Amino acid sequence: MSEEKARIAVIGLGNAGLPLAAVIADSGIDVIGVDINEGRCQLINQGKNPIPEEEGLEELIGLHGGKRLIATSRFIDARDCRNYIVIVPLFVDPSNNPDFTIMEKALQSLGRILKKGDLVVLETTFPPGTTDNKVRRWLCQSSGLKEEDFFLAYSPERIMTGYSISRLRDFPKVIGGTDEESGFRAYQVYKQFISNLHLVSSARVAEMIKVMEGCYRDVNIALANELFKICEEMGIDFSEAREYANHKFCNIHLPSTGVGGHCIPVYPWFLIKEMEKREHFDKCRLLHTSRLVNDEMIQYWAEKILLECMKFDKPLSLVKICIKGITFREGVKEFYHSRNLALAKLLADKGLDVYVADPILSEEDVRGKGLRYLKAVDADLVFDPFELKFEVSGRTTRSGALP
Amino acid sequence: MSEEKARIAVIGLGNAGLPLAAVIADSGIDVIGVDINEGRCQLINQGKNPIPEEEGLEELIGLHGGKRLIATSRFIDARDCRNYIVIVPLFVDPSNNPDFTIMEKALQSLGRILKKGDLVVLETTFPPGTTDNKVRRWLCQSSGLKEEDFFLAYSPERIMTGYSISRLRDFPKVIGGTDEESGFRAYQVYKQFISNLHLVSSARVAEMIKVMEGCYRDVNIALANELFKICEEMGIDFSEAREYANHKFCNIHLPSTGVGGHCIPVYPWFLIKEMEKREHFDKCRLLHTSRLVNDEMIQYWAEKILLECMKFDKPLSLVKICIKGITFREGVKEFYHSRNLALAKLLADKGLDVYVADPILSEEDVRGKGLRYLKAVDADLVFDPFELKFEVSGRTTRSGALP
Repeated sequence: MSEEKARIAVIGLGNAGLPLAAVIADSGIDVIGVDINEGRCQLINQGKNPIPEEEGLEELIGLHGGKRLIATSRFIDARDCRNYIVIVPLFVDPSNNPDFTIMEKALQSLGRILKKGDLVVLETTFPPGTTDNKVRRWLCQSSGLKEEDFFLAYSPERIMTGYSISRLRDFPKVIGGTDEESGFRAYQVYKQFISNLHLVSSARVAEMIKVMEGCYRDVNIALANELFKICEEMGIDFSEAREYANHKFCNIHLPSTGVGGHCIPVYPWFLIKEMEKREHFDKCRLLHTSRLVNDEMIQYWAEKILLECMKFDKPLSLVKICIKGITFREGVKEFYHSRNLALAKLLADKGLDVYVADPILSEEDVRGKGLRYLKAVDADLVFDPFELKFEVSGRTTRSGALP
Repeated sequence: MSEEKARIAVIGLGNAGLPLAAVIADSGIDVIGVDINEGRCQLINQGKNPIPEEEGLEELIGLHGGKRLIATSRFIDARDCRNYIVIVPLFVDPSNNPDFTIMEKALQSLGRILKKGDLVVLETTFPPGTTDNKVRRWLCQSSGLKEEDFFLAYSPERIMTGYSISRLRDFPKVIGGTDEESGFRAYQVYKQFISNLHLVSSARVAEMIKVMEGCYRDVNIALANELFKICEEMGIDFSEAREYANHKFCNIHLPSTGVGGHCIPVYPWFLIKEMEKREHFDKCRLLHTSRLVNDEMIQYWAEKILLECMKFDKPLSLVKICIKGITFREGVKEFYHSRNLALAKLLADKGLDVYVADPILSEEDVRGKGLRYLKAVDADLVFDPFELKFEVSGRTTRSGALP
């Protein structure tokens, strides 16, 4: 068996790692998936899909789970592999600096089974330069190998929860090595299961590509939010203006309560913090402003909600307000940096009578977030943070109709 | 003859007005074009095109100039028209507030020939609300008509110098009235010569559509400039990263020396100034930051040029620096808010030995801008502001090669 056809280990079977592992298995390659979550590993080995919202994943796990795709919580089970893909999460701490704790731990465990000539490819979205520096250092330290003893490359995951399988099958994917041979080798391995693959000049460029995409999204959502606020202030229908402003050269995004989740609100900080560390404050002003504009949208919507409450013939503190959704994205049970959760908490902190109704959450889920559950129909005022729309019971409005 | 088929007057035969007038004439409608520039009117009436860089215009002026398209400097010659299109420039003053001087004068002259039942359509890009307020007021004042006596609508020009004819023929164009009947009437008139026409709900929305497009461009160019600076700082090839970051959901623009011309750098101020007037400083932070990022790119490039000069074995003040282009856009002889001209002047103000070479400018043109002309080959260091590239004579470099 040639080395390229050899079994591949995927470290991290989370929302990004598991779809990748499944696609690799589906291409005919044996995969060892390593994840600290034993329950998740058991499910996978029974052919059961732990991410039901991921389209197409159930079929692949059903076909390959416990067969071509073996999940394990022990790194040692992957010791015979020659190709390792690391795709564990990276968060930012409360100061918006990247928190490498999980990554460092995973790489130290990997280092202990790493052998001369092995290939390691990172997929986690990183501040540019991370693979070349921190990752290499941690692998060398824990393996005892020299940097020239193993191949090291980077290929950012470009998935989107719910569409990961199709993204892996069709979407352009880039890969770059920390040196030429690493890049070439990683490209050969990935080419077996990724059809739309592009070799770029370095791991660092590949890292920047992913971060830049996130910055584009964040800045353009901030722009949509700012234009939305201006339109509201000037009595202009933003949706109509946006519809006709957009054409092949113009792509104004949708406004929102801000940007949540693990990706878009996090990546700009990678560049902002790097520039601030270098005292180049002038080189991240737009990214920084965009982050603030998006994060402060909850204040904007809280005020809008308060103003809507004025239409009720009762004291403000007695108006039953229901926020119809507290996850960061509609239909995805994930709360990381959720602006909708933050909005509900902000209103509760002000002493308002706030409740939550979310079709994908149970009463217990809502209580677990420190909030109270209420059916939307029982509220005076309902705010839908995904549609940015208000609904009223009608009974208690002063004017009888809301705009 | 029905009123819609009646002759149309176009007030303003500049870079935007003349292509429009020519396209209307080419659709078989008689056009009276009014412009204060008598020399330009004479040229047009002789069938000669005063805007050579405008593709396809020469043919249309040759066919219709002095025949179906009559140019005149006297408003009175347009008194028999029932449909008036106003497309004169609007600038911003040194404080970035819109300067309506030219517009007000044109509308006062138009008012004097305006009759009951006439239609006036504005095409100049405006701060949203201008047609409803200032324009209507000026027309009422100068005509003595009441606001219900004439029809008033707005349809923003969406041309781009050089491509105006094709833009008018293919590109989606919007039109909106200050009331329903005005909108409908204006739509009927424009439909005769604009095929891709969309009636929107109001003049105000139509005004915002155009301004929003400009804001999208300005913010996205600022983002490209910021990401370019970060890439340079981190030793990453921006072009390569951009190439692979862009896909159907990502459209990172090109970096530059900033944004010049009459359009993109001006329109965001319409919204910024309006929000500042209302004391809503929080609603224009991103637009404002983008303007600063773009305008301050000349400082960034000035520093880059200085650092390149360090590579020469002679005192900084003796390094002959040539800026290869001072117009705001390549190949368009226009200097309004040109960042390249501003860059050349900034370097000259620092006491550096700065020259200019621009293929579309004569030595006299350059002197007229207070700068000195030099052939690029005679300079030590050449900076091409359109390509963002340096060229060196080679003779005097310290390292023998520049990156």
